[in-house]
Amino acid sequence: RINGERLWAALMELAQIGATAKGGVKRLALTDLDKQGRDLVVGWGREAGMSITIDQIGNVFMRRDGVDNTLPPVMTGSHIDTQPTGGKFDGNYGVLAGLEVVRTLNDLKIKTQAPIEVAFWTNEEGSRFVPVMMGSGVFCGAFSLETSYAAKDTEGKTVGEELARIGYRGDQVPGDHPIGAYFETHIEQGPVLEDADKVIGVVPAVMGLSWYDCVVTGMEAHAGPTPMGLRKDALQVATAIMQEVVAIANRYPPYGRGTVGMVQVFPNSRNVIPGEVKFSIDLRNVNDELLNTMHGEITAFIDATRDKTGLGITLERVSYYPPCPFHPDCVGAVRNATEKLGYSVMDVVSGAGHDAIYAARLAPAGMIFVPCKDGISHNEIEDAKPEHLEAGCNVLLHAMLERAVA
Amino acid sequence: RINGERLWAALMELAQIGATAKGGVKRLALTDLDKQGRDLVVGWGREAGMSITIDQIGNVFMRRDGVDNTLPPVMTGSHIDTQPTGGKFDGNYGVLAGLEVVRTLNDLKIKTQAPIEVAFWTNEEGSRFVPVMMGSGVFCGAFSLETSYAAKDTEGKTVGEELARIGYRGDQVPGDHPIGAYFETHIEQGPVLEDADKVIGVVPAVMGLSWYDCVVTGMEAHAGPTPMGLRKDALQVATAIMQEVVAIANRYPPYGRGTVGMVQVFPNSRNVIPGEVKFSIDLRNVNDELLNTMHGEITAFIDATRDKTGLGITLERVSYYPPCPFHPDCVGAVRNATEKLGYSVMDVVSGAGHDAIYAARLAPAGMIFVPCKDGISHNEIEDAKPEHLEAGCNVLLHAMLERAVA
Ligand SMILES: NC(=O)NCCC(=O)O
Ligand SMILES: NC(=O)NCCC(=O)O
Repeated sequence: RINGERLWAALMELAQIGATAKGGVKRLALTDLDKQGRDLVVGWGREAGMSITIDQIGNVFMRRDGVDNTLPPVMTGSHIDTQPTGGKFDGNYGVLAGLEVVRTLNDLKIKTQAPIEVAFWTNEEGSRFVPVMMGSGVFCGAFSLETSYAAKDTEGKTVGEELARIGYRGDQVPGDHPIGAYFETHIEQGPVLEDADKVIGVVPAVMGLSWYDCVVTGMEAHAGPTPMGLRKDALQVATAIMQEVVAIANRYPPYGRGTVGMVQVFPNSRNVIPGEVKFSIDLRNVNDELLNTMHGEITAFIDATRDKTGLGITLERVSYYPPCPFHPDCVGAVRNATEKLGYSVMDVVSGAGHDAIYAARLAPAGMIFVPCKDGISHNEIEDAKPEHLEAGCNVLLHAMLERAVA
Repeated sequence: RINGERLWAALMELAQIGATAKGGVKRLALTDLDKQGRDLVVGWGREAGMSITIDQIGNVFMRRDGVDNTLPPVMTGSHIDTQPTGGKFDGNYGVLAGLEVVRTLNDLKIKTQAPIEVAFWTNEEGSRFVPVMMGSGVFCGAFSLETSYAAKDTEGKTVGEELARIGYRGDQVPGDHPIGAYFETHIEQGPVLEDADKVIGVVPAVMGLSWYDCVVTGMEAHAGPTPMGLRKDALQVATAIMQEVVAIANRYPPYGRGTVGMVQVFPNSRNVIPGEVKFSIDLRNVNDELLNTMHGEITAFIDATRDKTGLGITLERVSYYPPCPFHPDCVGAVRNATEKLGYSVMDVVSGAGHDAIYAARLAPAGMIFVPCKDGISHNEIEDAKPEHLEAGCNVLLHAMLERAVA
């Protein structure tokens, strides 16, 4: 069993770096604070006897040797960058749970056949630089190193410059690093475990995601003198599309998701009919055929709306990854560990994207979820219970041991 | 007949003060530019032999004596402040058409029985300070002088301070100034005249207006992991209300108007279900009973939506004025003048609010509309044809002469 108090203490110490007044953490990727966080975790890794490798996109791998070092390592990890109004647990828990597993193996003087590695991936959140999950994406070849180096923040600083500046632009070619199996522990970021009063979520798969930008172009005019029949009200047309996004998701239960999160209205004045409305669409499903059907339905609805209203409407897909089913061996290892330890358990499909989906392109992978308060994340009030974090870490220990062979 | 070229030249000269790169005008109420504009117009008034009175809210009255100066003056006017992205004609035309009437009477050495006055009212646009139509509103007692003095711009400067600073905080008590009849020429700000290919709009009435702020409060959550059935998506509930605003207006043709012009979504992030949506509602009608019915319907819809969805919804009325039918004598004077001059004509109900609605509380009033390009105003591309502006000014001359008796 791992040491829950030590795990909690590490989480609280790391959360000091970039701590916000409301109890959250703001530690954006490749900032000075990210460097401080990275240095702290790397220092802990060295103290625990691990050797450090950094690749060209700044992914960090901390390695504990096995009996047979020709075997590919059993890896765990996540990220330590946060949202601008982020919490203490999202990502950080996955990295520090890995560290706690190694500390526990050291305490118990357990040698594993295969080496154990704890990774943290660069810029998972995608808040400062797009795309999200950049480090693991480059590692598995989903995006190129060149494109990712060129990605800019709002001030025009690039990933390449910022990596060099904070001293985390390493030598290793991304992906030139074998993985035997990959596990990731994470807070659920949803309400399912808490609602069902379960401690451990076994994650069979991560939903696929399609992101779009939609722009409706009408004609600005004065809200008083312009008769209803002569209007080209961009907002009225946009609201019909916004409602269809949710209707589409509701037609594909239980895993269909449809969200409009971001809206900008121009000129946004009380007595001016909106001339342009720009908004985001986020569609998800765990089945790629259904996700494609949802894509087809929003496209068809927008085409029909354009024909019916005569307004200009553009729809651009800005992000996509397919659903990622995890490997039966890793899912099984998590399930076995949970049963052995006697925790209450259920399957929870992940609605959020994780570095594990890119690791899964290179090796068998699986995830372990623990509840978070009210299902809230990406929020300074994000919270989780020490006993749940401890339980997830125990499951990680046993699942890794099953694969690495004690 | 008035001198159309002189009118156009005055409009173009005034439009230099605060001219924008895109051909519009930015001359917000009580700024240095407003002072320059006021000084220019007052100078022109003095040159035309008029005496100047300024009241405590900065309304300016330029007077041409009549034969019998105990008679209340026949007044015309409008405003010279503009929107931040305003045009050359909105308001300015009404003031300079009045000046052109006086210049023409001088040229023709016509003496009127009653005095003639040209007024410009403070802060009609309401862009820098709320409420809109402040000067005429204070004049007729719709708002108090104290409240208006205390109104602040976004930098915290008050109307009282700014009036004093630019030298237009006068002595006269607002409203302590008799009016025999009031006329206002204005660009239509809508497409009706242009669509019907008519030169003059006789304005029987101005629509009443109800402005609201609506806030829907749901629960922020991650767009991926949160099942559709567990969401409290503030935007989805808000869009239903936004559509009902338009549906209500469509139920009360031809003068029902319903517009949502301003929307703010929180936290406005692509993968976060909106936790709060704030938006404006603008309802108008020319019949107060129908406007009240529309008010009742939006209130009832929101109550029903609150009950149905369980989300928090507040609706606050932030502005209201009732429909303003103009006086049959003034409407008749405009119609007579138009017929005498042989211009094509139609009735056009004003959807926009004007200083004339407040003047109408103190004296018989009427308005004269001329077409504007594509019905566009509150926009730097606002445009009007010299011959239409000339025609409107000729109608003003003859309508005023009918009331002031040549
Ligand atoms: N874990 C997480 O929040 N990833 C961000 C991408 C997403 O919206 O799923
Ligand atoms: N004339 C004008 O645009 N007034 C502003 C108030 C309104 O929205 O009608």
